[in-house]
Amino acid sequence: MSTPTHTKEWILTNKPTDFPQLSGPEPTFTLKTNPLPPLEDGKVLVKTLYLSNDPAQRGWITKGVDPARLYVPPVPQGGVMRARAVAEVIESKNPKFKKGDKVLANAGWAEYALNDPQNLQLQPVQQLEGVSVTHFLGAFGMTGLTAYYGTKIIARAGPGDTVVVSGAAGATGSMVVQIAKKMLGCKRVIGMAGSDEKCRWVESLGADVCLNYKKPDFKKQLVEATEGYVEVYFDNVGGEILDLMLSRMKKEGRVAACGAVSNYNTSQPTGLRNWFEVITNRLEIKGFIILDFVASGKVGEAMAEMVKACKEGKITVDESMETVVETKFEDVPKTWMMLFEGGNTGKLVTKLV
Amino acid sequence: MSTPTHTKEWILTNKPTDFPQLSGPEPTFTLKTNPLPPLEDGKVLVKTLYLSNDPAQRGWITKGVDPARLYVPPVPQGGVMRARAVAEVIESKNPKFKKGDKVLANAGWAEYALNDPQNLQLQPVQQLEGVSVTHFLGAFGMTGLTAYYGTKIIARAGPGDTVVVSGAAGATGSMVVQIAKKMLGCKRVIGMAGSDEKCRWVESLGADVCLNYKKPDFKKQLVEATEGYVEVYFDNVGGEILDLMLSRMKKEGRVAACGAVSNYNTSQPTGLRNWFEVITNRLEIKGFIILDFVASGKVGEAMAEMVKACKEGKITVDESMETVVETKFEDVPKTWMMLFEGGNTGKLVTKLV
Repeated sequence: MSTPTHTKEWILTNKPTDFPQLSGPEPTFTLKTNPLPPLEDGKVLVKTLYLSNDPAQRGWITKGVDPARLYVPPVPQGGVMRARAVAEVIESKNPKFKKGDKVLANAGWAEYALNDPQNLQLQPVQQLEGVSVTHFLGAFGMTGLTAYYGTKIIARAGPGDTVVVSGAAGATGSMVVQIAKKMLGCKRVIGMAGSDEKCRWVESLGADVCLNYKKPDFKKQLVEATEGYVEVYFDNVGGEILDLMLSRMKKEGRVAACGAVSNYNTSQPTGLRNWFEVITNRLEIKGFIILDFVASGKVGEAMAEMVKACKEGKITVDESMETVVETKFEDVPKTWMMLFEGGNTGKLVTKLV
Repeated sequence: MSTPTHTKEWILTNKPTDFPQLSGPEPTFTLKTNPLPPLEDGKVLVKTLYLSNDPAQRGWITKGVDPARLYVPPVPQGGVMRARAVAEVIESKNPKFKKGDKVLANAGWAEYALNDPQNLQLQPVQQLEGVSVTHFLGAFGMTGLTAYYGTKIIARAGPGDTVVVSGAAGATGSMVVQIAKKMLGCKRVIGMAGSDEKCRWVESLGADVCLNYKKPDFKKQLVEATEGYVEVYFDNVGGEILDLMLSRMKKEGRVAACGAVSNYNTSQPTGLRNWFEVITNRLEIKGFIILDFVASGKVGEAMAEMVKACKEGKITVDESMETVVETKFEDVPKTWMMLFEGGNTGKLVTKLV
């Protein structure tokens, strides 16, 4: 392959307050082709193979949010949309990386990225027999760590506890189910997901039961499934389901606030009618961001524990844990939007074709 | 005084979902006169002198709430409205109490209560020079303890912290201001209250500034007053102000969820638009109920510390800390409703006349 001179990129052109717009007069993203500068000493040129799709990305592009209030800087207007990727080094003037290396990189929504390894946050991909490299964007990446720390450290889930997790068929939720049930030995794990098919899959991962929140009698089913109330709720969705769960928590119950996907695309989130339960039942709600744990330098142990659990057959990290969507570069935003349509089970990965 | 044979009582006749109704076809409370049974051995007859008015009482009478989810049993339909009181023993067949004793009692909204001391939760009133007995319903009662434990233990406020407290001119809030600033040495205390007059009083108690939340530019003022963001928010109100405060908390800030008076009289509370701040800023929200600390048997120390601080002139517990409303028994519910009209500064106490 000859060295590319240009790269297609998806540029953030209009920050959304509600649903991102893929077309119309003010599209959220715009496709551009930009020249690649010559490769200087110390830099590498990588080709994006797979893109990680994460609900958190939505938070980085919201209009009017004070940058000081975000845990990472927002994507600037006019900048390339930020994303973690599995990439291949195709040219290198840095001794630490050589042509052909598979790496994790903050390549963004770009065909090619050229920069120094620090700016790209390059990391070599660990090669595990029988494990696809894409899992380092999911189960063995930030997603798995989010599930691990949220369940074990933030929510302090352990034997004897009943754990409820929303978004249980999603990338984080499907790991929470497995970690709670098969690594932490929780007594009972209850999932929630958006279709019967997803629910059966969540149960196959170890959930005692998984409820389809789109069913008309969902609320009744949840009340029955949580009879006696529950110690832990791992919240990926916020909004109405969080509100409902506030009324199903045991006294001194713990809520790990991990995500609020129900709120991401609306400027008018649902009210929490059951807020008084926080007081009367002495609930503890803790928000967390996995980057804090990464910064502590201790995530290696957690990751090793998960890899070990996988090797021993305790937890499942296979193709069922991800939805890999073959995508032309022109359709990168469209695939990302599947996150908000409930289209995926497990990690949603874009495979560039 | 001859022994009374009957007592007037306010009976809970229609549990409200929204605002309690003092008149109309379905009044929340109904005045009745009931005979007093003869005084048996072990029992005492008390006369109610002062009634404690607490927002928490509203929670004990809401229609349709699962009793298992309340921290104390709800007031039963047809039962006397529950309230803590300062009372006088007017007849006793119990050796522990004698005629003329001033006591704290769960007398309820009744002129007279006749029962054994355990059922009445009788406690002798400590006599402190220059301190009105009514303060044992407020600053030196459950209210003061709520402020103490909420600020010190739940919110872990200490030197270096900026503390914001809503309902700062209320019974709990006015103690939070004093405890944070004058006992725990917090760097800065910001109050919120519903009138300029209340705000100046809160500042006289030690708040660095107190903001009138009814002012049109309140939001702007709050943003300015919390420049650099704050470590601690003591929430007495919930709803919109809680929502606003979620956006003013420093990373890893702590919210003590003590009350939600803005929600008590509505079945449609305000949504929390800023819920994502809980996640992005890793906030910790903890609900608490003072009875848990009372049950631990350690509140005596906290109380002694507050009494000492008062004697040393560090904190103010005088007539400014309570609004005593002289009330005919027929108007007991009307005085109680002042809690929800923002009529009182400090503890709202009903003096029966």
